[in-house]
Amino acid sequence: MSEGHILVSETGVPGGRAERLSALRKEIGRRGLDGFVVPHADEHQGEYLPAGAERLAWLTGFTGSAGLAVVTVARAVIFTDGRYTLQVRAEVGEAVYEFRHLISDPLSDWLIGALPEGGRIGYDPRLHTANWVEKTRARLERAGIALLSLAENPLDTVWTDRPPPPLAPVIAHPPEFAGRSSADKRAAIAADLRRNGISAAVLSQPDSIAWLLNIRGGDVPHTPLPLCFAIIGADGGVELFIDRRKLTVGLETEHFGPDIAIFSPGALGQALIRAGRGGRRVRIDAMSASSWLLERLIAAGAVLDRGSDPCVLPKACKNPVELEGARAAHRRDGVAMVRFLHWLAEAVSGGGVTEIAAAERLLAFRSEGALFRDLSFETISAAGSNGAIVHYRADPGRDRTLESGTLYLVDSGAQYLDGTTDVTRTMALGPPDAGMREHFTRVLKGHIALATVIFPNDTTGSQLDSLARRPLWDVGLDYDHGTGHGVGSYLSVHEGPQRISKAPNRTELQPGMILSNEPGCYVPGAYGIRIENLQAVREHAPAVGDGFRPMLGFETLTLVPIDRALIEPALLTSGEREWLNAYHGRVHDTLAPLLEPAPAAWLAAATAPIS
Amino acid sequence: MSEGHILVSETGVPGGRAERLSALRKEIGRRGLDGFVVPHADEHQGEYLPAGAERLAWLTGFTGSAGLAVVTVARAVIFTDGRYTLQVRAEVGEAVYEFRHLISDPLSDWLIGALPEGGRIGYDPRLHTANWVEKTRARLERAGIALLSLAENPLDTVWTDRPPPPLAPVIAHPPEFAGRSSADKRAAIAADLRRNGISAAVLSQPDSIAWLLNIRGGDVPHTPLPLCFAIIGADGGVELFIDRRKLTVGLETEHFGPDIAIFSPGALGQALIRAGRGGRRVRIDAMSASSWLLERLIAAGAVLDRGSDPCVLPKACKNPVELEGARAAHRRDGVAMVRFLHWLAEAVSGGGVTEIAAAERLLAFRSEGALFRDLSFETISAAGSNGAIVHYRADPGRDRTLESGTLYLVDSGAQYLDGTTDVTRTMALGPPDAGMREHFTRVLKGHIALATVIFPNDTTGSQLDSLARRPLWDVGLDYDHGTGHGVGSYLSVHEGPQRISKAPNRTELQPGMILSNEPGCYVPGAYGIRIENLQAVREHAPAVGDGFRPMLGFETLTLVPIDRALIEPALLTSGEREWLNAYHGRVHDTLAPLLEPAPAAWLAAATAPIS
Repeated sequence: MSEGHILVSETGVPGGRAERLSALRKEIGRRGLDGFVVPHADEHQGEYLPAGAERLAWLTGFTGSAGLAVVTVARAVIFTDGRYTLQVRAEVGEAVYEFRHLISDPLSDWLIGALPEGGRIGYDPRLHTANWVEKTRARLERAGIALLSLAENPLDTVWTDRPPPPLAPVIAHPPEFAGRSSADKRAAIAADLRRNGISAAVLSQPDSIAWLLNIRGGDVPHTPLPLCFAIIGADGGVELFIDRRKLTVGLETEHFGPDIAIFSPGALGQALIRAGRGGRRVRIDAMSASSWLLERLIAAGAVLDRGSDPCVLPKACKNPVELEGARAAHRRDGVAMVRFLHWLAEAVSGGGVTEIAAAERLLAFRSEGALFRDLSFETISAAGSNGAIVHYRADPGRDRTLESGTLYLVDSGAQYLDGTTDVTRTMALGPPDAGMREHFTRVLKGHIALATVIFPNDTTGSQLDSLARRPLWDVGLDYDHGTGHGVGSYLSVHEGPQRISKAPNRTELQPGMILSNEPGCYVPGAYGIRIENLQAVREHAPAVGDGFRPMLGFETLTLVPIDRALIEPALLTSGEREWLNAYHGRVHDTLAPLLEPAPAAWLAAATAPIS
Repeated sequence: MSEGHILVSETGVPGGRAERLSALRKEIGRRGLDGFVVPHADEHQGEYLPAGAERLAWLTGFTGSAGLAVVTVARAVIFTDGRYTLQVRAEVGEAVYEFRHLISDPLSDWLIGALPEGGRIGYDPRLHTANWVEKTRARLERAGIALLSLAENPLDTVWTDRPPPPLAPVIAHPPEFAGRSSADKRAAIAADLRRNGISAAVLSQPDSIAWLLNIRGGDVPHTPLPLCFAIIGADGGVELFIDRRKLTVGLETEHFGPDIAIFSPGALGQALIRAGRGGRRVRIDAMSASSWLLERLIAAGAVLDRGSDPCVLPKACKNPVELEGARAAHRRDGVAMVRFLHWLAEAVSGGGVTEIAAAERLLAFRSEGALFRDLSFETISAAGSNGAIVHYRADPGRDRTLESGTLYLVDSGAQYLDGTTDVTRTMALGPPDAGMREHFTRVLKGHIALATVIFPNDTTGSQLDSLARRPLWDVGLDYDHGTGHGVGSYLSVHEGPQRISKAPNRTELQPGMILSNEPGCYVPGAYGIRIENLQAVREHAPAVGDGFRPMLGFETLTLVPIDRALIEPALLTSGEREWLNAYHGRVHDTLAPLLEPAPAAWLAAATAPIS
């Protein structure tokens, strides 16, 4: 799944939106404010929110993954990006809210137009990054508008039946999957802090804490995260702020040991004061940490060391056990995908298969795999022109039937205990036309270019992005999403810091990083094409001789056939044909022994060499 | 010529360096300082320095293009980059100076180690960018060291015979070459300032002023610049700070007209105070403007608008007349290069041709061309293993003879009134071996990839860089310089803001920008290979249909054969062969009618199609 088409599970939002807005306005007025900002965010700035953090959906009805509302006494506005232009109008209704673009119409400009000088806008500092607050405040102050940090969220005051925080059990992520002890990870992070004269680092991202402590949870959909905060000291000791009710039996005594101290989430504020006291140097990532966290440190007199979360880079570089787990998970995922594609080929000719029925069948095949725990995101099951909507989500009861003569795009993945998968395939239902074949083949050429590239040690994903786009650029085409995102190890399906996209990214690719490779081509109203495999960065066998350098390359992890019916062989170079045939040979030889005779026969045909 | 191998003309530095250092130390002590910073820079942060700004060479003997010395009471250190590791030791001597790396050993770290808390380091604010001063000061202040702006440069006090500022004549750059009137350029810049609520912009880069006012000069080698400063107001009026003795007859009255007011360079300080008074918003580019300029504006109470020099982007996008001039200049340059390569082929077999003799012969051929004014940089004429030294400069009297069985690399260019050229060719002297042919062909494949790429409107040079490197990366090779730099129109051979390199650059490529395309491959001790053409960004014929976007591509300007003897056809794709043959056909058909029979016959053979 490409970044940017992130889906959240729909939150139950019954009627009464007008009453909610009116109650919020009253509460804002009671506090002497002229307005209040309601972002789509939780305290961790995570991709998936627990139900109690779905404030934007509760207030407005908008269920998209990115957005922000501002409510003033007289007006209400909702900001979304281009992906949600239609959806937000359908969900929210045009009577009450104005609509603005999140990027091209900045919030601060709207506020400056809507409020008089001396206006007072409140925000909940737990729900915005420190960076957002600093930038927005600087802009508003120039116009004489105050941005005020609120100790209590006025929306929470009026949302009387707000769901309580989730309490999914937290379990140990055992060494056979984690590959490295928490003590070892903590010692390395602590040594790094000491080297930089830092006394502690605040960890606000649950996936960092899950990686550091070798734990997993289930507080949000599709990502095995326990919502929590932590502070790691330069001695390697960790203060973990989490609801004790989530800890499974024995976790504290047997897994954590004496160096992890458990505190209730409510104790975090005091702990930050303690950590920052006396001008101590504290690392905090102002791009991801909430403003509330920084406020506490600053109040304590801490010297802020604004840098990246120290877990992010080591978490991104998978160790050999995690990589072996990823390979195993991808074999099981490949088996499920092949069974599904084989079923699909037969079912579509029978007729009546809907997008949701197909997604459910795929989930059923995946569920049969060992170590399967969940999907890694809601499956994008898109028939025909729905494939051109990059973040498409089928609407239950109104989903489309898969028809012959169209393309079917399925972007899906799973959470296995030993690894996270994410794969997109586009299948021709019946004979494709020449345009479909040319587009598909160009996407495939881009995919192969990025699968086969060899590159020096100091290369970023931004430098490789154009390789995947060039075959489309050649004929005046492109795609409006990134080419590759990082993927966790039984963790988030989108993780940083590495990324392959047009946007500049300064993280050098390093061995063990897992990235998606997912170029696409979209013809609005007709079809969408995307081919996505996950691939791991690895050292490339060194050349010998003058001037040769250590190089890196990729190992493809995903094992699923690429639809041969959509390939126009004349457009492939001999090298590209060789890659495809070798990949298909590997897919076949790895998966065939694991399959029943009927899907195995289908696989043999689907992976036969092309010439 | 790739950026990063910039050459300066050697400054006469007779003995007595110890005395100079000792005199400087005395002067530093007299001013109550613990040390002083001597950069390789002038007041414009230009690439080429006038003789009177060669302070680093005068003090230390180091003649490289990038470096910085610090002198304290007890120690002296010189910082250079990797290109100059050997040269600096040879020129400066190890007795007095310590040597450090400009990038990996930051100046501030050395100072913190060398000076006690409370230490006082002076600098000349005219010779450092505002950005450098701010960053360095922040680092030093943390260690309790003060970085002090000096009104007078202590080195200038002891350099009693410092050459006076150059007084090369300033002439009008006429409409048939400039293509756009200065009044029109000024009106557009002024409108832009008004749109942004800016009352004036400070111009510290002489090539910006030369472009804006349609003037050219000759104060530094190889770039027709008049050293000067200017301030443009939101009404389009310009205050120009320049020594009046440089203005040729009639320039002021006939060319400048009433909207350009001339002031002496000494009047700049007061003018900055005027421009900034009363909290006026003034645009200044803190990446290129000296700290001294910002100091004056801040003292006046100006609101600084830190942004890029407003001339840089429109200067980079050549207008149709400038592009037509570039094509014409490249035809004449191609004629000179073909005559030279033909001469070379005959002369080398005769024996005894040296690197400098070859460069002189090339200069003579170029000088015969209409509108020729100067070289655009000192020719890199490198025989055999000297070609692997990217910034090689032949040493008069000790230069190498061109030998059969080796490669010869010549990187050179010229300033014509209608355009600036820059071309590199690598020639086999006698039959090349298989390794040479493979390396050359891979460099050619990279060059062709960048010559033929089609890309969307929002693409930066950073996104295209890997296309030129990939054929080298494939076999574990790379090159340690950028792939392409911007080129001026009878101006600097290196200009921004666009660039094709690994370093992130956020400037989108736009029609009319001229860039070099110069991948290379270097085998230390054996040979160097580089193929460089200039190419202009142009709109690509639009495709028609759903999803097709406006695209850009390149027009190759340089017209010089690429050595067929060094090409291994089996390594080329059919598309690459077609490009090469079409390019050679165009070179032949354009230049043959302009040549005498003997070089024309050589050209016909040199551009014959390969299969």
